Amino acid sequence: MKTDEQKLVNKTELENFKVGVDNVIFSVDTQLNRLLVLLIKRKDEPFSGQWSLPGTLVRKGEALEQSAYRILAEKIQVKNLYLEQLYTFGGPWRDPRESPDSYGVRYLSVSYFALVRFEDANLIAKNLSSITWYPIQKVPKLAFDHNKILEYGYRRLRNKLEYSPIAFDVLPEVFTLNDLYQLYCTILGENFSDYSNFRSRLLKLGFLCDTGVKVSKGAGRPASLYRFDAEAFAPFKDKPLVFI
Amino acid sequence: MKTDEQKLVNKTELENFKVGVDNVIFSVDTQLNRLLVLLIKRKDEPFSGQWSLPGTLVRKGEALEQSAYRILAEKIQVKNLYLEQLYTFGGPWRDPRESPDSYGVRYLSVSYFALVRFEDANLIAKNLSSITWYPIQKVPKLAFDHNKILEYGYRRLRNKLEYSPIAFDVLPEVFTLNDLYQLYCTILGENFSDYSNFRSRLLKLGFLCDTGVKVSKGAGRPASLYRFDAEAFAPFKDKPLVFI
Repeated sequence: MKTDEQKLVNKTELENFKVGVDNVIFSVDTQLNRLLVLLIKRKDEPFSGQWSLPGTLVRKGEALEQSAYRILAEKIQVKNLYLEQLYTFGGPWRDPRESPDSYGVRYLSVSYFALVRFEDANLIAKNLSSITWYPIQKVPKLAFDHNKILEYGYRRLRNKLEYSPIAFDVLPEVFTLNDLYQLYCTILGENFSDYSNFRSRLLKLGFLCDTGVKVSKGAGRPASLYRFDAEAFAPFKDKPLVFI
Repeated sequence: MKTDEQKLVNKTELENFKVGVDNVIFSVDTQLNRLLVLLIKRKDEPFSGQWSLPGTLVRKGEALEQSAYRILAEKIQVKNLYLEQLYTFGGPWRDPRESPDSYGVRYLSVSYFALVRFEDANLIAKNLSSITWYPIQKVPKLAFDHNKILEYGYRRLRNKLEYSPIAFDVLPEVFTLNDLYQLYCTILGENFSDYSNFRSRLLKLGFLCDTGVKVSKGAGRPASLYRFDAEAFAPFKDKPLVFI
């Protein structure tokens, strides 16, 4: 087996890699209608003092997902964190540590994505000065190519909102149709659809269940509270749907 | 900068990686109604003599996509090859070369995906004994975890067929609605939809353009030839659609 490896190396040299994981964790503050992304202030070089996505390098014997969950467990406590693989950014030259006078290895990043419910997520206190929810519109220049990774994650989020029931992961248990519409506006922008189209489309799909309870918010008439009916949704699962 | 790296290594050792790319290249033989995948017979250890996806290891200074295109260029000539990143499989223990008495590095695979037109693809002659289009139903046990990668690619293909116009990349320039239906059956299975639903759904979307020409196949009445109208499709681009 060694001869095989040597043959390859002789023919042309293979690259050596360290592998990192970077997490794009979104949340929605439904009170203030803001889409948020979890950012970490780097303590170490390179990019010391700059904001970045929460990431780490993969350790010996560790699966990729394991690394991603490990670093998040140090930063945030959250129920139902389900990471989905986003994309792999492989460079070359995506990391200044790659420069030939440095370590002679390349840094590859496997990125992960999640949307978590704002109320269920607690930033871990001892890190509070170096971790924050950043409104997506105000994200500064990040370390490495993390703005690009974030942009990729943001696109995935918008796509998923259009064909999967991901919105119900972040809304409260019961919600008005206007709450749901507002969530879509927050992520997709105000003009993604008009309210009455959105409303009739969603109701026709048949997996929003009217609880019979009404609430009054502001001056308008009382609005019905709905619940997402996972059972009624089951037949649609893994079928592409268009929600909007 | 060195101190940062050393601190990490001291705390807990980082994994060293070689990075591979593996390509899941599908085609459809529309004459025989068979979905095909491109397989390579391995010459070297590990898994010498076994079939595998066409892949290679990333060389110094090479971008991931570059490696993927490089290995394909040695195996197949094809117009309009557009590789899409599929998924990254990171182990540990996905490659027998990882065993501790071997090289002490882990092998990560970034997989890529494409669907190519059968008539536009030529296998490169000098490799013909070690490269073939395999009907998807007859794929044997492959090297490494390539059956898993293939399964992942197959799922992506089926999903894309449902919400993107990928079918028109492999059909001839003009086609009957029955040709299109047959292609869907070949990839998704006979019972994915009945013909008349499929037909009316597709026509309603408005990007199939009737050429006015009719053809007779077999005993049935002459059928209209259609062309995919990319311009009429433009407004739908990047919007999820349900074709079936």
